[in-house]
Amino acid sequence: MKRRDFLKTAGVGLAASTAVAAPAIAQSMPELKWRLAASWPKSLDTLFGACETFAKYVKEATDNKFQIQTFAAGEIVPGLQVFDATANGTIEMCHTATYYYFGKDPTWALFCAVPFGQNQRQQNAWFYQGEGQKLLDDFSGKHNVKCLLMGNTGCQMGGWFRKEIKTVDDLKGLKMRIGGWAGKTMTKLGVIPQQIAGGDIYPSLEKGTIDAAEWVGPYDDEKLGFYKVAKYYYYPGWWEGGTTNHTMINKAKWESLPKSYQAILETAAAYANSDEMAKYDANNPAALKRLVAKGAQLRPFSRDIMQACLKASNEVNAEESAKNPTYKKVLKSMQDFRNDENLWWQVAEYSFESFMIRSRTNG
Amino acid sequence: MKRRDFLKTAGVGLAASTAVAAPAIAQSMPELKWRLAASWPKSLDTLFGACETFAKYVKEATDNKFQIQTFAAGEIVPGLQVFDATANGTIEMCHTATYYYFGKDPTWALFCAVPFGQNQRQQNAWFYQGEGQKLLDDFSGKHNVKCLLMGNTGCQMGGWFRKEIKTVDDLKGLKMRIGGWAGKTMTKLGVIPQQIAGGDIYPSLEKGTIDAAEWVGPYDDEKLGFYKVAKYYYYPGWWEGGTTNHTMINKAKWESLPKSYQAILETAAAYANSDEMAKYDANNPAALKRLVAKGAQLRPFSRDIMQACLKASNEVNAEESAKNPTYKKVLKSMQDFRNDENLWWQVAEYSFESFMIRSRTNG
Repeated sequence: MKRRDFLKTAGVGLAASTAVAAPAIAQSMPELKWRLAASWPKSLDTLFGACETFAKYVKEATDNKFQIQTFAAGEIVPGLQVFDATANGTIEMCHTATYYYFGKDPTWALFCAVPFGQNQRQQNAWFYQGEGQKLLDDFSGKHNVKCLLMGNTGCQMGGWFRKEIKTVDDLKGLKMRIGGWAGKTMTKLGVIPQQIAGGDIYPSLEKGTIDAAEWVGPYDDEKLGFYKVAKYYYYPGWWEGGTTNHTMINKAKWESLPKSYQAILETAAAYANSDEMAKYDANNPAALKRLVAKGAQLRPFSRDIMQACLKASNEVNAEESAKNPTYKKVLKSMQDFRNDENLWWQVAEYSFESFMIRSRTNG
Repeated sequence: MKRRDFLKTAGVGLAASTAVAAPAIAQSMPELKWRLAASWPKSLDTLFGACETFAKYVKEATDNKFQIQTFAAGEIVPGLQVFDATANGTIEMCHTATYYYFGKDPTWALFCAVPFGQNQRQQNAWFYQGEGQKLLDDFSGKHNVKCLLMGNTGCQMGGWFRKEIKTVDDLKGLKMRIGGWAGKTMTKLGVIPQQIAGGDIYPSLEKGTIDAAEWVGPYDDEKLGFYKVAKYYYYPGWWEGGTTNHTMINKAKWESLPKSYQAILETAAAYANSDEMAKYDANNPAALKRLVAKGAQLRPFSRDIMQACLKASNEVNAEESAKNPTYKKVLKSMQDFRNDENLWWQVAEYSFESFMIRSRTNG
């Protein structure tokens, strides 16, 4: 007998009906305690702040029934192992940058940031309204996780250099701390990429073990003190035009959630996605002013250098596409979307911003 | 006796405990049916789509308990009266552009879009992490509504003109359909602003009753067919650099909600806020291509015209600030934030976008 039929035929009174109804309520709003491990220390309140904002809204929206405890890198899982820990179910979820996992498959980098990719708004549009989320769902499902957009740094800086970089040749032999897949492009230009964790970058730069280091942008970089030992601060970070963070959720855990909790996670992640970007935007200007006051020398990468980097990036993309059909497919989707975006961008958005920047102090 | 003590001492069995638990659950998740009236027709699936996305997520997140029925402009309330209907409790909420209400107080325009204001990301940052939301809460509370960010069009186009506008003098005597507070600035340049509802613009342009009309951007404008009767399509819409939509909620209704429902509305609105922008970004490029193929002639406003408009806008701001302390305070907050944003913007974001636009077809 179906349960619905039982209810109909039982001639139930109040006590029975509430007793039967209770499990349904419990199922739709189960009490859950999940653990989220981040790839960041708590001191980076932009990135780690997104985790806290997300957890706060999930807790409030569920009347404290769904509690997500947030852990900084290293507290329960090392910063770069949070994906594995999520995929194998050690923890329920994490907050990270998917390009950290390019060693498993460079396709991961395409969902986060690759050289000459999209800016923040274009990334959002590709995920929310283009093919981005669908492609990521297909790909991440094979790796046992569900991913949701949850934060963006905006276009990053090109990093701190001990010497000026005036020509493409100045890049040759340069030992540079640079994260992720962009190192592959840098290698083609003669740079020797170094993988160094955040806390170890400063002493390496100070001792001269490395010649340059990139991190994020003014607000985060200031905390790490690079300006004291490498004064040339280059821009733009052409390998991180709109670096996109994600929360990854263990796939079975995601699928076990009632639809209501899935909707709450999606919308709370969307709030944190915008809020992280807003926090960078709100804090970077003052940090930039302080850094310049402390002696940082702002320098743009020359057009020649940018063009050499684009050429090197195109070579990397062609090589990887030749052997990795998934990379090829996702790259094409992102680049086609990006090219259309920039066609439109140059008309209204860019011409408005050009005027506003030129007229900044005129009212 | 405290209720908790009653439960302890009553020696309750299953039936009693579930019977007592039920009201607490009912209080935290009441069954609600609200009505949201929009300022837009359903055909504008960007703007009206934000209402539908929002309502869908609220319904899912509450397991169908909180249902928000969405109505297009004119279905239950005329498009520009949705604010009044919300404030007086006729409906619970609306979705609109606050600059429509500049007649009540021009301060409303500052929260939506004013000439030479902020772009979309800067607006988000001002609201989420700057003073924007706090200033809006203080202001809107006096008008009996609570407002949440819920959508952005990005930088709009400058509109459709029957003749080319080559000099500032070409603006003199021009009858132009232009929405909201920007008309005040246009008046200083000799333009005669016209308030015309969306559906009436095309016949007015066709007959020559007006010489020009601005609406939003390629995707929305294409639907209204302006390219057939006014082929010069100008950019940028310097009076709408990042037009921000809001949902307004009747203040007493907002305050009556359990905290969990407030959190759900905030996060669902944040999702719709990003999603509306994403929809414009995803659809504008193809619409722009179609419009150009159909004969639209793209034209930038000249630098001389832009500077004359900035001067006129500064005069309007000075005049209003002299008599309206709230306008003065909110304007200063927005402009100070904007100036800092643009200082930082020109470094990483703008230099990245400049290169990407110039290199659009090179990989």
